[in-house]
Amino acid sequence: MKMVVADLEGVFLPEIWINVAQKTGIEELKLTTRDISDYDVLMTRRLAILKENHLKIQDIQEVIATLDPLPGAEQALDWIRSRSQIIVLSDTFEEFAKPLMAKLGFPTLLCHSLTIDAQGNITNYNLRIGNQKKKAVQAFQGLNFHVIAFGDSYNDIAMIQAADQGFFFKPPETVVTDFPDIQVTRDYEELKAMLHGLLSP
Amino acid sequence: MKMVVADLEGVFLPEIWINVAQKTGIEELKLTTRDISDYDVLMTRRLAILKENHLKIQDIQEVIATLDPLPGAEQALDWIRSRSQIIVLSDTFEEFAKPLMAKLGFPTLLCHSLTIDAQGNITNYNLRIGNQKKKAVQAFQGLNFHVIAFGDSYNDIAMIQAADQGFFFKPPETVVTDFPDIQVTRDYEELKAMLHGLLSP
Repeated sequence: MKMVVADLEGVFLPEIWINVAQKTGIEELKLTTRDISDYDVLMTRRLAILKENHLKIQDIQEVIATLDPLPGAEQALDWIRSRSQIIVLSDTFEEFAKPLMAKLGFPTLLCHSLTIDAQGNITNYNLRIGNQKKKAVQAFQGLNFHVIAFGDSYNDIAMIQAADQGFFFKPPETVVTDFPDIQVTRDYEELKAMLHGLLSP
Repeated sequence: MKMVVADLEGVFLPEIWINVAQKTGIEELKLTTRDISDYDVLMTRRLAILKENHLKIQDIQEVIATLDPLPGAEQALDWIRSRSQIIVLSDTFEEFAKPLMAKLGFPTLLCHSLTIDAQGNITNYNLRIGNQKKKAVQAFQGLNFHVIAFGDSYNDIAMIQAADQGFFFKPPETVVTDFPDIQVTRDYEELKAMLHGLLSP
């Protein structure tokens, strides 16, 4: 039996941190792993910025709730869900993604979580497990699924390579150049054509 | 992080084979593992009955499409999905469940599959993996999830016992008698109260 796993941001949703930075006007929240390569240092800095600006989880969720899925994302996801099981594998935090997952009809999302105190302050972040996308693919293969994976960026490579079949969706050109052997789809029509082929018996 | 896994038939959906038997008027399709304890013998007999009656997958799916989820199931499922990830673990076949999963908003379903030829004849059934419910719980625990499981019957026991926390939903009294240590919920309000407690930090 086949199963699809997919990345979230850049595939079905806009980049959450970048949009929170734009909506709140806090430029420093635009920092990414391109600016600070150590993810732990980056996240610790992000949480400190939220604290300095007195932003609680409710404030962030309100900002995120004003965002929308990428145009066509709901329809593409529904198209997939009527043909296959799909599980979203993301390195986001479930408390951030929740308002947007509602707009996508709550597909299953495996990601990370935040520690939030009674006042709504984000006191810590918890990576559920390291290299979670690849490990999820391997777990589903262990349950005898043939796994088809797609994503848009470097943190999807291990997932795509571990999967039985995998490809890129709307990747930056740098990623395509670095991984020329991985096939590329560039919009939802190409995605559907690719999945139609891969899901056929 | 917590995750919910749940059975399907008797929890969110009516029993599919029994309803197919009633709708088609083919009494013999009501046979269950209580009548023929060997599942392989039972399924082989069921597929032979479908063939004798010239029933193809399209006919069965049309019958199943006339069924509805149990009253309140969609609302209960949406309540859970807005609070936690939930994955449905069922021993049904995805080709049978599909018309009803659409009515539930396509929650992720891990189950088994059928072999169907080009004419729509069901030529075989494929159990994806033995003891799949328990193995799925263990796989999610391996991904560092705290798993909460519920179901209604004997084929849910291994899943409930493997989970970090588990309980029955609307079980037959025989099951309750045989497993007195497993807590019982009897309707969606009790289910929600139980999950509210188990999902609280």
